[in-house]
Amino acid sequence: MTEHAEPATPGATTSNRTRKRRSARREQVLETAARMFFEKGYAATTTEDIGAELGLLKGSIYYYISAKEDLLFEIVERYHEDTRSYFERILASDESPLDKLRELITTETAHTATNLTRSSLFYTEWRSLSAERQQAIIAERARHEHAVLDWIREAQRAGTVRSDLDPKIATYAIFGMVNSAYRWFRPDGPRSAEEIGVEFCELVLGGLETR
Amino acid sequence: MTEHAEPATPGATTSNRTRKRRSARREQVLETAARMFFEKGYAATTTEDIGAELGLLKGSIYYYISAKEDLLFEIVERYHEDTRSYFERILASDESPLDKLRELITTETAHTATNLTRSSLFYTEWRSLSAERQQAIIAERARHEHAVLDWIREAQRAGTVRSDLDPKIATYAIFGMVNSAYRWFRPDGPRSAEEIGVEFCELVLGGLETR
Repeated sequence: MTEHAEPATPGATTSNRTRKRRSARREQVLETAARMFFEKGYAATTTEDIGAELGLLKGSIYYYISAKEDLLFEIVERYHEDTRSYFERILASDESPLDKLRELITTETAHTATNLTRSSLFYTEWRSLSAERQQAIIAERARHEHAVLDWIREAQRAGTVRSDLDPKIATYAIFGMVNSAYRWFRPDGPRSAEEIGVEFCELVLGGLETR
Repeated sequence: MTEHAEPATPGATTSNRTRKRRSARREQVLETAARMFFEKGYAATTTEDIGAELGLLKGSIYYYISAKEDLLFEIVERYHEDTRSYFERILASDESPLDKLRELITTETAHTATNLTRSSLFYTEWRSLSAERQQAIIAERARHEHAVLDWIREAQRAGTVRSDLDPKIATYAIFGMVNSAYRWFRPDGPRSAEEIGVEFCELVLGGLETR
């Protein structure tokens, strides 16, 4: 289906229906872009390819986006919005550090595995974002890593985590494991995303906890 | 320094000295390509860029390579040659499954962290290789994963690894953790590549072992 996009006339009053249609179309653009970046790679997919896949006339795609990098950013940003929301919830809870860790590992593993396309794009293509956007992502992830590091240290002081382990290396190990789920998880596999989160947690907590 | 490469004359007898010079030059090409792919990304680095960085006259780079993808392949292949060698050694040893696992985790973590440029290129750019080469890599890595899975299952039967853990998910967790080292390891950091291998091992074995 080939469709002509409404021209973006500056100053024109946009009706509610047009706005709704445009917003629904934008969702489709994002979904299609995510799928194509995932299948062909970000560098190999042009903005025009995405427009063609959507059946848009040449050039019409620019009605919905300004640059290819904005699409990638919006895709990984949506992935991060969820991450942000469960992270803040866990951070604010009054559970023990070990329980916070448990919850983060299970939730983050399940989230990575459930949102395969977005999580894969995030982990494989984030370097294609502008330097400024990369910096913002690094800063946000550093906050998460510091929180986990703090929980492990607190648990070591409380005697619930082995004191002979380096808390920093343990933090890296945890994120390495959790974030790897996008590489091999298959939605039609024998285990659900949630079950994998629980298994990962068993393994890590088993390694961390004082015997 | 701008240098003109010797023309590849078919049928001409190549002297030993020329062959040696050519081979040393090829090493430089590989080193430079690896560094540039690592810093700028594979897609953004052209073969001509690599030639220019080496001070070669336009076009002379093709005396040393036939295609950019061959360079990437050769870089990741060298990384894999080492992997192959320690993997075969551990596989052939008559240690217990748990000791084999211990040795693989420490050796592979240290190897990933010691060869940062190559391991990073392998993990971030392997999808830029031809479909055939990707298949060969997948097949080889599947062999490693199967070996680890077998060791965990054997250890479960022997009663040295907890029987309530899913050996497949534990295998993924181990590789996820070990292979993440290229993301954060810094050679000038407080811990050596070997120390990180030992810490990772402590954590995983602690989680796996029967209490």
